[in-house]
Parts: sequence; structure tokens; C-alpha cells
Amino acid sequence: MSAAPSAESPGPAPAADPFAVPHDDPFGPHNLPYGVFTTAGDPAPRLGVRYGGHVLDAGAAARALGAPAEVARLLGAPVLNPLLAAGRPAWTRVRAALTSWLTEPAHREAVRPLLVPLDAVTLHLPFEVADYVDFYASEHHAANVGRIFRPGADPLPANWKHLPVGYHGRAGTVVVSGTPVVRPCGQRRLPGEDAPSYGPSLRLDVEVELGFVVGGPTEQGSRVPMGEADEHVFGVCLLNDWSARDIQAWEYVPLGPFLGKSFATSVSPWVVPLDALAHARVAPPGRDAALLPYLDDAGVTPGCGLDVRLELAVNGVVVARPPFAAMYWTYAQMVAHMTVNGASLRAGDLFGSGTVSGAGADEVGALIELYGGGGGFLADGDEVTITGVAPGAGGTRVGFGAVTGRVEAAR
Amino acid sequence: MSAAPSAESPGPAPAADPFAVPHDDPFGPHNLPYGVFTTAGDPAPRLGVRYGGHVLDAGAAARALGAPAEVARLLGAPVLNPLLAAGRPAWTRVRAALTSWLTEPAHREAVRPLLVPLDAVTLHLPFEVADYVDFYASEHHAANVGRIFRPGADPLPANWKHLPVGYHGRAGTVVVSGTPVVRPCGQRRLPGEDAPSYGPSLRLDVEVELGFVVGGPTEQGSRVPMGEADEHVFGVCLLNDWSARDIQAWEYVPLGPFLGKSFATSVSPWVVPLDALAHARVAPPGRDAALLPYLDDAGVTPGCGLDVRLELAVNGVVVARPPFAAMYWTYAQMVAHMTVNGASLRAGDLFGSGTVSGAGADEVGALIELYGGGGGFLADGDEVTITGVAPGAGGTRVGFGAVTGRVEAAR
Repeated sequence: MSAAPSAESPGPAPAADPFAVPHDDPFGPHNLPYGVFTTAGDPAPRLGVRYGGHVLDAGAAARALGAPAEVARLLGAPVLNPLLAAGRPAWTRVRAALTSWLTEPAHREAVRPLLVPLDAVTLHLPFEVADYVDFYASEHHAANVGRIFRPGADPLPANWKHLPVGYHGRAGTVVVSGTPVVRPCGQRRLPGEDAPSYGPSLRLDVEVELGFVVGGPTEQGSRVPMGEADEHVFGVCLLNDWSARDIQAWEYVPLGPFLGKSFATSVSPWVVPLDALAHARVAPPGRDAALLPYLDDAGVTPGCGLDVRLELAVNGVVVARPPFAAMYWTYAQMVAHMTVNGASLRAGDLFGSGTVSGAGADEVGALIELYGGGGGFLADGDEVTITGVAPGAGGTRVGFGAVTGRVEAAR
Repeated sequence: MSAAPSAESPGPAPAADPFAVPHDDPFGPHNLPYGVFTTAGDPAPRLGVRYGGHVLDAGAAARALGAPAEVARLLGAPVLNPLLAAGRPAWTRVRAALTSWLTEPAHREAVRPLLVPLDAVTLHLPFEVADYVDFYASEHHAANVGRIFRPGADPLPANWKHLPVGYHGRAGTVVVSGTPVVRPCGQRRLPGEDAPSYGPSLRLDVEVELGFVVGGPTEQGSRVPMGEADEHVFGVCLLNDWSARDIQAWEYVPLGPFLGKSFATSVSPWVVPLDALAHARVAPPGRDAALLPYLDDAGVTPGCGLDVRLELAVNGVVVARPPFAAMYWTYAQMVAHMTVNGASLRAGDLFGSGTVSGAGADEVGALIELYGGGGGFLADGDEVTITGVAPGAGGTRVGFGAVTGRVEAAR
């Protein structure tokens, strides 16, 4: 597990009263995302829950407030995986306990000393990644990239409207926001050349994605139908699937992306519970090809689309605003498809959505789309930040924080 | 971690004297492969080392013989990962200790009660798989499959002679030999149809491979040159990369194999130390395209090819004898390529070689090659067994045991 300083944008200084969280704070009581933190005074990683401008030491709170043994055990872990493994009923009990501790006045004085200002913590990778699967769920992205990578062919592969295309990525190189990303070296075939050459990637890109954090393990040989996906999806984070387009273009036929992606994947330090996104659910785009029954979500209400509004900034300048609501395939379809062959899920599995791109020219989630493949790739020293926010209950907003990373020169 | 009964072929009954291991026993003192076992009387998983027809309880031996603390800690673990993480110098010290305990008469009476007959143990997955990468290192296999999957096109992709093509597989569904394999369901487009249909795979196949078990973690952003690969490759197992060819053919463009492979990958219970294969090293086939320096192994002596002779049997009938010595790309090239972009290695990483196929019609490692794609796929109830043996010192043979699995009907 990597550790790196938090790269949250600083925001306002924490109020003197940590409980004075304004109604429009994206980290109010309707959110309560989970992370793992340390402090200068205590280097042991432990679970934290963000509340306004503070982080609740969740394990300490469970002990101080005499939580039931299961809740204390799950929140007392140094990483989210035991909680992920515990399954949906336990997630509900733990969230109810946290909500009570943070919002009921009777607990206020016991909880107050356990709220650490955000600028006093270092945030870590919040879970040990089991398997990392990256999907390709945006029609706009798939078509944009298809036109660039396979000019002259149909931009969408024949299977694209029939199944959520996906592939396995490298779990061991998932890092937390703030971790520097070293420009990868590798083979790429330069324009006009027949043979590949070796060197630093000349087309380093990003992919703006959401990551779905999976728990509730399943048995090998079993399937999870769409209607049970929520039993296995714990929460959602921001994800940057860094991509070296020149390495990828040369290597990816016939077995898919490998070194063009495997050098680093960055995730936000906060995992937003799926429960916090009830008001962000929307119907996905209309389906224009009949779906096989295990993927057919016609009439599912509310839909499993999510109205998360993302922003991509390079060196502090917002260059695109990808709308997650435009994604063709939903997380429920991803779970159903992933397991339809009997593949099991494990606590800590991470599903990337694939690049989030909408229909608009400024709604794309990758620089290759923004600049048509002709330029605009990342330079050494560039800092990339993805942020996200979704609607919450009663006019509130649910914040995802940020995932950021700076490009370091190739070694 | 899955558990399943051993599927080793029974062989001769253990001799009354466990130390009476014949010179030609493939599990003599020149081999000493590692596994994880339990017994009916002690269900706690623990490390075992195979010696002839017995399994040494390695942790108990370390305690009984007063091994140094590091050796006792590594052999006392319930899984190989701590040993994998310890790195090459520790691997050498541990192997030297095991060799001493099993071969020096002074230790004989202390060790004797710690040798358990092979038929009294249950063997388990010997290590927790971190990331699983599957390569595609046989030219014969790549060309055979290219002709079937992409008729009319060049059988080898343009990149194939320039880099070892690979992709990430699903670590969470790697199982130990003997675990039943449920026939996967999924989408496949039947011949003559435009749209996909859903159902059990009709083209269930195997892939005969070796698996390279990796330890000695590396830092993200660093590279492992070919000459240092042996510092990071602990040992070798047999691997069956079960493949549903119809699911794979429909899904694999453009991001590679996914559900066609992710339902199960079986490995042998024994990991043969790389040290035991010193006499199996051979030069790989001549390279007929110039390699970039980081992959150029011209003049490397001894080569990093391995003369492992494999056999594929279906229902007890040997149907093919794939020669690993025919593989174009070596494990050293796989390590160098995998890390050239700065991707880190973790203890428990597993590299599949890709299907082992030689030039001969009976040397192929997959049924689709054996039968030209026209039939011969697996039926429910079929049992597939892969075995392997390599030359050892002084005319000995190094045994890999077997990886086996029976196909269960789709659920």
C-alpha cells in the first residue's frame, strides 16, 4: 500500500467547531466517505470518515462510544478490506452508527476530540486492491478512441452495444491521490517508422473515471444478477487511469492494453458509500440494441446510472467536465457481466468505469479526445486533478474530493 | 485461497524408509519443491517440501532442528508469500537448510517423524496470487491461433517478434490442482448469426503453460533488467489457463481476453525452485527480428529457455507433448518487459508463459490447435491433467507433479 500526502484542494480553514458543517458542505452528514489516515503524532494507519473539514478517527470513536463488537472490529482495522468483506447488512449498521455519533448531540463531547482537522492528516490508499478490472462503458469515449486508433473501421467494435467491454488491469500499481507518477518508458512505433523504438512515452494521457469498490465476496462458479449488484458494491471513488497512448497503440493487438496502463492508476483517498448516492441515481441512456436478459435494465427504477459531475484540471485549469450520467453501461451491468461466467468477487475488487466522456467537445475524459490525438499530452511537471460532485438529499451535494498526481520525468 | 484434494498421480506407495529415495526419483534432493498442505489430524495450512513420496513439514523441521530465526519464520508461515518476499539470498539460505536436513545423516532421526506420506496430505494453493499476468510466448501457438481467430490476416501481429505480448488475468480465480472447474456461461456469437446468444460455453479448452512465481518486490518507477530476473523469480509451477473459445472470440476485440479466461486458472500444488532447474536451461530459439537492447538476449549463457517436457492428458489419454524449450520469449524477457514501464513487482505475482506449443502437430498446448478449431473441445466430466519434467544434475529428472481439473456442468 502506498502512502502520499493528501492532495485535496485546501478549501476553507476548518471552523473552530468541527460540528458546524454548513448545509451545502459536500462532506456533510449525508456523505460520510471512508478513508485511511495517519497523523504526525500517530503513524499507525487507521480508518477515517470525512465530516466537513475534519476526519473522524473511526476506530477510536467506536471504542469511545462502546460500539457493538462487530462495528468496533470493522472500524478498528487499518484498511477498509474487513469492512468490504462484511457485506451490505454490516455496511448499513456501520453507517448508521457513524451517522449517530456525528449528528446526535448526546455524542458530541465524546466525539469532538476524535475529529482531526483535514490538514493534519496524511491520507493513504484506503483499501488493498484485490483484482482491478477496467471497463469501457462510455459510448462517446469508445467511438472517439475507435476513430483515432482504428481509422477507417467502425468506431465501435461489433460487441460494444451487447456487453460492457472490460479487461483486467494491474492491482499492484494502484496508488492513492498525490503519489507522483513517473513517465513510463517502453516500446512505441513512431509515425512513419516500421520498427519500434525505445524511450519515454511521448503521448502520456489521463482517463477520468469512477472506481467502484467491491466487497461481499462470492463463490467461484456463482453469478451476481443485476438486481443484487448493490449487495456487492460498497462505494465509489475517483480514478485516473493514466495511459501512455504510444505504448498502448503498439502493444494492444491482440491481447489488450498492458504496459500502456500498468505503470500507475490513481484513486481518490475517499470512498463515497453507495448509500450516499441514492439521490444521484438516474436512468442510463436509452439502449439502441436489444440486451440479453442478464444485462437488460429496461424498466429498472431508479436506474443505476449516476449523476456525478466530474472535472478534469491540468495545472489548475479546468479543461473538461465529463458527465458520468452519460455512461452507457451501469455498475450493475458490470457486476452482472463480470460474474456471468462464474468468476468470483473478493473484498477489495476495484471496477474502473472506463473513461467518462459525454457528447460535448468539452465533456471528454481523456486528452487524446480533447485534442483529437494531435497533441496536448502531458509534460513533465504537469499536475492533473480530477474532482467530482453529485446531488444529495434536499439540495445537498455529495463530494468525492479529488484525485491528483504530478508527472515526474522518466528515469 | 481454495483448497482441494491433491490430484497427483498416486505413483508407488511410499517406501517404509522415507529417506530411501531412488536416484531417478523426480522429487529427489535435487528438486525440493514447495507447497502448502494440511492433514486430517491438523487442519492448519503449513509449508511442505516434497521429498520422494513424502512431504516434509517444513516449519516443524525448522523448529525441531533449531534453524536460524529468519529460516524458521519463513518456513513457519501458512503460505509461501513471506518466503517470496524475502528475496534471492534468503531463498538460497532456506534451500541450503532444507537440503541439509533431508540429506545429512545426522539429522535423519529428527526429520523422520516430520515426513508425511504424500497420500496423507491435502494440498492447497501454495501462495496468495498478487497480480496474474499471462504472456503469449510461443510463436507456434500465436501463429496457430492467429490463423483460426483472424483468418486471412497475418497470423502473427506486427508487434509479436518485438515484445512478449501479455495481459493481466484474474488473480482471484487462480485455484489449486484438483479444484473442479464449472463450465462458464456467457455471450457467444454462434456461426452464421449476427447477434450474440447466452449460454454455456460450447468450446471449452485448456492452455498448457508454465507459471513463474515471483517474489522480491520492486519499487514502482524502477525497472528489472534481464540480468537481474533471477533475483525476482522464485520458482516454476504448471498452469492450465482454461479458455472458453467462443466467449473469448466474441469479447476480445479491442481490449483482450476477459470472461473467456477469468472463470478459472489452475496451478500445480508444487512450486519448483528456479535453483532446481539449473540443468534445464537452454538457449531459446534463434531470434529473427532485431530486439531492442532491454530484451536482447543474444549471447546470454546459459540461456533462459527451459527444457521442460510437458504432457497434456484428457481422461488419462495423453493427447499432446508440448516442449517448453520451443518458447520464443523467456521468463527473463517477461520480467524485463513487464517492468520496463516502471510497473512494480509484488511477492505472489504469477506470470503465465502462455500456451506452450512446439512445431509438431502433437506438440500443441491447446485443443483448438490440436483439432484445428473444428471440435475436440471439453465435455462435462472430462478430466484434464498436465504434467511436466525437466533434466536435473547427473542424469536426474526434476518433477513438476501435475495440475488437474474436472469439468463440471454449467450451473
